[in-house]
Order: sequence, then C-alpha cells, then structure tokens
Amino acid sequence: MRFLPREVRAAGSDAPCFETPLGGLEEELTPTDRHFVRSHFPVPEIDLARWKLVVDGEVDRPRSFRWEELAALPRAGVTAVLECAGNSRSYFRPWTEGVPWGHGAVGTARWEGVRLREVLTAAGLRPAASEVVFEGVDRGNEPGVARTIPYAMSVPLAKALDPDTLLADRMNGETLTPAHGFPMRALVPGWYGMASVKWLSRITVLDRPFSGYFRRRAYAYLPLGATDERAAVPATTTRVKSLITSPREGTRLEPGTLLVRGIAWSGNGAIASVKVRVDTSPRGAGAWRPARLLPGPPGPTWRRWVVRCDLPRPGIFVIRARATDTTGATQADRAEWNYRGIGNNAIHAVPIEIVERSGTAPTRPRRSSRAG
Amino acid sequence: MRFLPREVRAAGSDAPCFETPLGGLEEELTPTDRHFVRSHFPVPEIDLARWKLVVDGEVDRPRSFRWEELAALPRAGVTAVLECAGNSRSYFRPWTEGVPWGHGAVGTARWEGVRLREVLTAAGLRPAASEVVFEGVDRGNEPGVARTIPYAMSVPLAKALDPDTLLADRMNGETLTPAHGFPMRALVPGWYGMASVKWLSRITVLDRPFSGYFRRRAYAYLPLGATDERAAVPATTTRVKSLITSPREGTRLEPGTLLVRGIAWSGNGAIASVKVRVDTSPRGAGAWRPARLLPGPPGPTWRRWVVRCDLPRPGIFVIRARATDTTGATQADRAEWNYRGIGNNAIHAVPIEIVERSGTAPTRPRRSSRAG
Repeated sequence: MRFLPREVRAAGSDAPCFETPLGGLEEELTPTDRHFVRSHFPVPEIDLARWKLVVDGEVDRPRSFRWEELAALPRAGVTAVLECAGNSRSYFRPWTEGVPWGHGAVGTARWEGVRLREVLTAAGLRPAASEVVFEGVDRGNEPGVARTIPYAMSVPLAKALDPDTLLADRMNGETLTPAHGFPMRALVPGWYGMASVKWLSRITVLDRPFSGYFRRRAYAYLPLGATDERAAVPATTTRVKSLITSPREGTRLEPGTLLVRGIAWSGNGAIASVKVRVDTSPRGAGAWRPARLLPGPPGPTWRRWVVRCDLPRPGIFVIRARATDTTGATQADRAEWNYRGIGNNAIHAVPIEIVERSGTAPTRPRRSSRAG
Repeated sequence: MRFLPREVRAAGSDAPCFETPLGGLEEELTPTDRHFVRSHFPVPEIDLARWKLVVDGEVDRPRSFRWEELAALPRAGVTAVLECAGNSRSYFRPWTEGVPWGHGAVGTARWEGVRLREVLTAAGLRPAASEVVFEGVDRGNEPGVARTIPYAMSVPLAKALDPDTLLADRMNGETLTPAHGFPMRALVPGWYGMASVKWLSRITVLDRPFSGYFRRRAYAYLPLGATDERAAVPATTTRVKSLITSPREGTRLEPGTLLVRGIAWSGNGAIASVKVRVDTSPRGAGAWRPARLLPGPPGPTWRRWVVRCDLPRPGIFVIRARATDTTGATQADRAEWNYRGIGNNAIHAVPIEIVERSGTAPTRPRRSSRAG
C-alpha cells in the first residue's frame, strides 16, 4: 500500500503544502515524493541558464555565482530531519493562525551540495558580519503587508558557518525537484524548516538582526498579550519531539502484546531516550517505560524507536510517547500556546481500543434492532 | 454573502453530513438548507404512498399508520435547537473516534407534526412500557457489527410522552426535505440530535433499556479504561453550551469597543446567564462580564447574546464565553475526554488580534526584504 501526501492549505493561499504520509514517517529516509512540502507562494519556474545566486551585504567582494561556479566547489552532504515550525499546529487549543498541519510536516532526507561557509568565505566576511539572510525567488502577498514580498529568513553567522549548513542542490541522490527548491535551497539542520529557504536567489550578510515579515511575524512565538511583533520571539531550533507511528489513532486490536513504534528528533542534540506510557483510567497514569532506539544513519536525523506493551484485556487506552534529548530537554503534555501556532512539541497521545478476541464472547452488541 | 454548509465525512462513510455555516448560527432560526445534517447511511428514497409507520412492542394494539392517518391527528409544533452529540468533536485532545465536526453541528428550527404521545396512546401503552425505540428506514454497516443494521435510538417513556416530543413532518414551515428525514422524523427537544431519528419506519415500546449499537456504542460516553460498551453511559440531554459567533478566530481589528455576539443553549432548561472574558496575558485572566440575552421565541431553543468589550490597545487576545443554565450547570475549560468524542461543551475560546489604527505608526514590519 502506498500512502500519498495529504494536501493542506492555508485559507486563501495557492501555495502547495503537503504532509508526509504515515509510510514516510516510518522509514529511515523519507522518499522525495512523499517528503512534506511547505511553500508560501506558488512554485517559481527557474531557467538554470539564467539563474544566479547573489551574495552581498557585509562581505568584501559582493558577487553573484552561476550554477557552474557553485557546482565546482567542494561537495558536502548531511542526512537531516526537517520539521516545519507549524507542524502539529492543528493540535493547539484554542485555534491558532496558519496552515492547519497535522503531524506530517516533518521528513528526513539525504541532502548534498556545498557548504554555505565556502561561499561566504569566498566573498570575504567583514568583521561586522553577524547574520545571514536567505532570500528566495518566490514572492507574493501576505496579510498585513502592503506589497509583494519574497520569502526570506535568516540565521546567525555561527549557524551559517556550521559545516552541516548547506546550499543543497541534491535530495536523496537526485537533483532537487521544483517543489523542494530547484535549483538550490538552503539546508539548515537543527532549525525548523523555515530557515531552509528554497529557490535561493540571494544571500545577504547583515551587521544586525533581520526583521523581515517571515522572521518577525510568520515564524515567531507571539504570546497572548503580545502588543505587536516586537514582543515576538523568532523561531530557531527544532524542539525535541516524538511521534507514535504505530498503532494509529482509533486502531482496534485483540488483547496481547503490542509493538509500539515511532520516531524522535531534536534540533538541540541527539535523542537520549524515548519513554512510552499506556493509560488505562482517567485518573491514574501508567508507568513510563523506555523504548529501544534503533540504529540509524549518522547526522541530525530522527531516531526510530520501538517498545512492546502488554494490553491483556479489552478496553479504551491512550498511548503516549515522550522523548528527551542529550541537553535534558523533554516534552510536556501541552506546548505553550502562541498565536502563530508554532513549536508544538506536545506529547503525542494515541487512543486505541482493545476488543475481545474473536471466537470468545463478543463485546460488540449482538443486536442493534429495536428488540435490543 | 451567503455561507454554504460545510461537508464533513467520517472515514470510509458515504453518509452526507454538513455543518451549519456561520450565518446560520447568528439567526434566530436556521434556514433549512443551512441547518446541519447528520446521517449515518445514505439518504433513503421513500415513496410516500407505500410508506407506513409501525408501532409495536409493549402496546395493546400493535399497528401501522399510513401517512394520511398520521396527518389527521391533532397538530403540534415546537421551536427547538438540535445539536449533534458529536458537535465540537474535533476540539477534543487527544483524537476521538467519529465524524470530525467543528462547532457547526447545531441549528435551531421550527418543527411541526403530531405529538408522539398521541400515537402511543392510540396504540395503548401497556403497564410494562418503559422505553421507546425509534428505527429509521436507513441502514448499512458499522465498524465491529457483522451485518447491516438500521439507524435506531431510544428515549425513556417519560421523554416520549413529553408534549414537545414530536413526530415531525414539517420544518420551518415546509415539508421535510429528504436530508432532514422526509416523510417523518422523531423530534426530541432537549436531547442531543441522535434521538431525533429521521426517515422513521418503526416505533417499538420496550419493557427494558434499549441496547442497540447506536445507543450503547456510537452515542455513549466511553471513558478511558472502559472495558467494553457495558461501561459506557448513553448520551441523553444536551449539555449547556455557548459559542462565540462574532468575532471569528483570527480576526484583525483596530483598537476600540468590540461587539461580541454568540448563542447559548441547554437541554436541561433555560439559559440563566452568559459571561464573557477577554484574556490579555498567558497567566492572568480577565474578569467575567455578563452578556445581554436577546429576546427570542419561546421554546427549548438557543438564546442569542451580545456584550461590548473594550480592547483599547494592540495585541493578541483570547475571548471566552461561558453559559450557565437555570439548573446551575455551566461550562468548563475542557469537557471530559471520551473515546467517541461526544458531549464537548468546553468553553469556546476565540483568539483575535488588535492591530495599530491605520494612519498611526505601523506595527507590521515595514520591510521584509533582506535589508530588513
């Protein structure tokens, strides 16, 4: 069975957005055509022969690179998980603004290209350099902004110089597809996906923080009572999180031992542990039991995990999984509400039902007629 | 502007289900073509000339009624709010089983027909009579049930004899439409909509509780840890609830006085009060202020309400409304979770944003370019 990506749209937007389907969350690498896609504007058509990448701002030698020039630089690669900052947004209560993502705005891929620091070094960073802005070819209108704007996002200089931060032109061994940013995108492992700007057209080095719409407003923690975007905290690193990929919500199973599977990741470091709990009553909580982390490829990617849970009797149960990373950061029952609905790393809770083994006395009502 | 009903479907089901759109929630009566529809199976095609209503079970004179015979009985009418027991289901966390309703599975209409008690009296209730089962023409498959079943639901005898409990053949002054149960449906004010069985074909009087699938399983409070449907509590009366209909979630407004509007209802009695609160910080909570209840038609219907709220400065705010009925029942921040996701009368919370008055200093970032 092949699960297709699910399209998710913001109200009034014509930008393509797709969630990674279940199957893509259970694999070590997410196939490219099933890897989530987040776009803010329609996908631009780019003629490689005319495309160039401008590097300017606080550099000694502002210049533009043609495709062949970038392709001639030393190659690098990284296997990385990317999660949209708005992933799991629709699980926030109350409502929050933005694309109503389920849990599927996350994926893991092998990325290849050149290190951003090669390009920055070639242009000559000035002493005042402190922040690096990526700007895409794509542009359009956003609420509350009077004119069309390009998609743009920034990272601090230290993150830009990280050897894992790439200008990526290949994904899972193939040329980038248009939906994933052809011909070149930023790839910023450890940060929410908004920093991995697609369809790159310009890299600008600043001597001060970037305050563009997408940084100050769209991808910022805007708390209750914030008086304007100046009170907002821009999103940066990916919060520690885990998802249960099996069983799915609403699964019916017979009593026995259940294999619970999932994934866990963090932008702050490696996953130290995943613990799983099965709740069997409204008040009492089951004990947290450690899951086994499966070996995976090196790099800032997700870890797959598995644990056996005994469910010997029929009933309604809720399974929860909680990851902790090597910095000690862990997940809570609820993530702090914010108006843009970003950073939702609340503990994933999956209700299931164990039904009487078939062949024994049925727990389903045998009759539903009027004679009841 | 005309708001159209929004279709909502259960996974794998071909039964039509529609939510009442915003406009229909702000009117005293919901127009028929905008009133929510909940079906469990495809809409049956019924030939009125061949249709009959069987009345049997604990009655002295089991019989069937033709359309003309029912139409000749004394007429009665009631203006009533109907809410699906699963309304607001998609606001439960974690996930629950069933049609993923937003807040629109509710509506108010004028219903006319004959009193159920006329028909029961005509058939002669036996002393053992204690429960009345409504069975529809519609039938199909449900998960965990081996064969096709008709839609069926019951009410206790006292509710069946209530003068407001009707066999309705008219809605808002017109013959019932097929989607709303032509030629005749039960109409049980004060109870969740599942008891107002459409496309009635049979009324059976029982000497014991009805234990059909829809009563024991589909419309039952199945708590965490319930070992099977025997632990479930069937849904009955509609819980007290209010909804904010204006402003909508995510509205942007300039500072000033805001008119907050909504509706409130309860199956247990009249609405005693609605209070509204505006929260302006994550920790602190605003004071509850009483809303003004607008006059409306007599009967077990919703009350419309309105209150002015001062929002003098820009920011992110959450508005909440809480209704209390004349029995003292009120709403909580969260309704108790249950596997079927029914009875969600949690306080409605509507986040909005107040933005700087245009013409003064903009709060939107003026620039979102790389130079930002």
